Amino acid sequence: MVMTWRSPDEGTGMPAKPKRIIEAICIGWFTAECIVRFIVSKNKCEFVKRPLNIIDLLAITPYYISVLMTVFTGENSQLQRAGVTLRVLRMMRIFWVIKLARHFIGLQTLGLTLKRCYREMVMLLVFICVAMAIFSALSQLLEHGLDLETSNKDFASIPAACWWVIISMTTVGYGDMYPITVPGRILGGVCVVSGIVLLALPITFIYHSFVQCYHELKFRSARYSRSLSAEFLN
Amino acid sequence: MVMTWRSPDEGTGMPAKPKRIIEAICIGWFTAECIVRFIVSKNKCEFVKRPLNIIDLLAITPYYISVLMTVFTGENSQLQRAGVTLRVLRMMRIFWVIKLARHFIGLQTLGLTLKRCYREMVMLLVFICVAMAIFSALSQLLEHGLDLETSNKDFASIPAACWWVIISMTTVGYGDMYPITVPGRILGGVCVVSGIVLLALPITFIYHSFVQCYHELKFRSARYSRSLSAEFLN
Amino acid sequence: MVMTWRSPDEGTGMPAKPKRIIEAICIGWFTAECIVRFIVSKNKCEFVKRPLNIIDLLAITPYYISVLMTVFTGENSQLQRAGVTLRVLRMMRIFWVIKLARHFIGLQTLGLTLKRCYREMVMLLVFICVAMAIFSALSQLLEHGLDLETSNKDFASIPAACWWVIISMTTVGYGDMYPITVPGRILGGVCVVSGIVLLALPITFIYHSFVQCYHELKFRSARYSRSLSAEFLN
Amino acid sequence: MVMTWRSPDEGTGMPAKPKRIIEAICIGWFTAECIVRFIVSKNKCEFVKRPLNIIDLLAITPYYISVLMTVFTGENSQLQRAGVTLRVLRMMRIFWVIKLARHFIGLQTLGLTLKRCYREMVMLLVFICVAMAIFSALSQLLEHGLDLETSNKDFASIPAACWWVIISMTTVGYGDMYPITVPGRILGGVCVVSGIVLLALPITFIYHSFVQCYHELKFRSARYSRSLSAEFLN
Repeated sequence: MVMTWRSPDEGTGMPAKPKRIIEAICIGWFTAECIVRFIVSKNKCEFVKRPLNIIDLLAITPYYISVLMTVFTGENSQLQRAGVTLRVLRMMRIFWVIKLARHFIGLQTLGLTLKRCYREMVMLLVFICVAMAIFSALSQLLEHGLDLETSNKDFASIPAACWWVIISMTTVGYGDMYPITVPGRILGGVCVVSGIVLLALPITFIYHSFVQCYHELKFRSARYSRSLSAEFLN
Repeated sequence: MVMTWRSPDEGTGMPAKPKRIIEAICIGWFTAECIVRFIVSKNKCEFVKRPLNIIDLLAITPYYISVLMTVFTGENSQLQRAGVTLRVLRMMRIFWVIKLARHFIGLQTLGLTLKRCYREMVMLLVFICVAMAIFSALSQLLEHGLDLETSNKDFASIPAACWWVIISMTTVGYGDMYPITVPGRILGGVCVVSGIVLLALPITFIYHSFVQCYHELKFRSARYSRSLSAEFLN
Repeated sequence: MVMTWRSPDEGTGMPAKPKRIIEAICIGWFTAECIVRFIVSKNKCEFVKRPLNIIDLLAITPYYISVLMTVFTGENSQLQRAGVTLRVLRMMRIFWVIKLARHFIGLQTLGLTLKRCYREMVMLLVFICVAMAIFSALSQLLEHGLDLETSNKDFASIPAACWWVIISMTTVGYGDMYPITVPGRILGGVCVVSGIVLLALPITFIYHSFVQCYHELKFRSARYSRSLSAEFLN
Repeated sequence: MVMTWRSPDEGTGMPAKPKRIIEAICIGWFTAECIVRFIVSKNKCEFVKRPLNIIDLLAITPYYISVLMTVFTGENSQLQRAGVTLRVLRMMRIFWVIKLARHFIGLQTLGLTLKRCYREMVMLLVFICVAMAIFSALSQLLEHGLDLETSNKDFASIPAACWWVIISMTTVGYGDMYPITVPGRILGGVCVVSGIVLLALPITFIYHSFVQCYHELKFRSARYSRSLSAEFLN
């Protein structure tokens, strides 16, 4: 059973009913929740400014815009098919997934970790950038620059070499580009091993912060639910 | 010596004797063990309900069913070759491997760890799902959606992009799909690095629980064997 | 500069002088060292039985045998080229690399770790075997067994599927085999994630033992060299 | 939008203005900084000998040499295009990235870690070399040596097998080479698993040293900035 991996509403133009219904229900629920929270909130102005509420708004809006555009232009019109804007909007509908973060401790922990570890995240980024700059320049020189006649066309430019460096350092290795000369392969080995070492360093920092955040949030949520149940009981 | 990697009883229809004999002995032993344990057990009703015994039953039954079907329909009949049910049953025979779990402390530890860490397993699953939803939608847009004429056919649909995301985040990188545009490659780099970070977080939680379970089980098994030998001696 | 990656003494039949001279010197040194240690040792019988000395012998012997065969049969005779035995012997010459273990604390630590962690190594092996058995049977069924007409020929047999499972679980992903059906891809994702979790567990055990062994050996070697210098001084 | 991944000044010969301006500003700033530090320094002789200052000089010089050569020989002359020296120099311009190390605590930590962990780095290197020697010889024998007629041409020589070993042990797996015989695949599995174990061992050592260095440098930089501000205030 080899599938062709095409989304049904792309190839045939036929609406994928069940998926749409689930989406409509979720969006409806989120909209209702947002409105209720907005009504209940004491300070309307501050409510609008909070980042989580802005994310909520961003997560819900694209759905309504794309539905509105479909209503106005017709289901399968030429505009719908060719419009890049519509495709971007349709993609942005996926952002309501992030809204689950509110109700799930794991994603809350992740958010808190990212906020606390911004120094280590920056360090990770800088390590990757510096390694990419050095290794891409070296590999481009060794694979392409030394002998233009018999060169490896995959490494024709620095940005292409950058892609090879990031894919090698993270040990993904798609195989669309690989060095074929002896010095290029030696550099490749050095690049991969140093990539493993470099990436391991800040990630473990981030991990330790994550463990701490997790235990804090668990403790806080346990206390919160206890206080909540106490409130209900009294 | 390039092998064609075909199982002997699939290509030629000839029975692979020694493999079958080993399987028959193993299944015979397991059946005998199950029956003895059933007879010895004090509470027959509770014995049947215990999950490990149900696994044992599931591990043994497919063998007998497939043997019976072979006996009734003949070795190489048309039905045997085309029958999907038979192929499913033949595959399920492999489950007797899990029965080794009873006698091996490592697999017991793994089972106990999975039972205790179900929260972290769920967290790992949710992290992967959320990342897949976001990155697959983004990559499908960047690689295929922005320009339908010159697009990367590999990223034609969201499910196909999901496959790319999971294979990239886990740093497997088969190379059957890879981004070719500049924004798609930048997204690919972000996806891989965030995949390494995300997967590392819950896995280390699971690891700590595993270590604890291992030491508990080791201690318990040492005490158990001591008490057992004491029983035998007295 | 694209190299053809052929060893010089294979393609042209010309002897690679400098490499041979280095090898001869190393083997000469190792032979002399072995003989001296044998003469100095008090108990000749026990000396022969010690595993490290057997390794030494295995590391040196192939060189002499292959040299002898070259002398008797001529450098480029037909026999030399076709003889599998000779090629095996030539390969075994590489084992003198292991002899470096004697003089290098890192490799000593590794050896001691392997000796102490044999339980965890077995656990790692069992985890891999059980996962391979289950996932290879499942993937072979999902990719090839369900529909023989439109099946993925790469997954035609269980051993081939085993190769895919080990390459996927370790996140290598050569890309010579990959699932193409939807259920096969879902199984692939599960297989990769569980492979990362499974492999991480015993490896960390082995790591902790390695750290302990390293500090023990460092301490012992420091004390040993101190006692040695004290011996020399007195 | 499929990009052709060619650097603008390579394919068309047209100067990439904005990139050049940024580079000129950076190099100008670095030159000024170097000169000021040289003038301010009390001991001129010692200043020149310090390794960081030599790196600074190496980072700045290639830019001036390549600019000078462009001025003397013309922008797009035949010499410019064919000259390997020039391409090497142009590549070396990237080294000014390393100069950022001065002002970034993460890269300082990395430098200090590398200096302290040189023993572990050597151990990592030795592990990789020994494993490469053994596995490449074995895989070359199993894949190519046993049967020259039906052999896997990718494994024709030991150096080519070395490339396969390093790419497999680090779990990159480009897919340009892979074993196809049964014994070769079993060896491949062993190679990959032992590669994961081997690489994990010294990397974690390096990590522990990195954490220590990071906290030391953080503490020192906090004290330094406090003393600096105290100096300014008094």
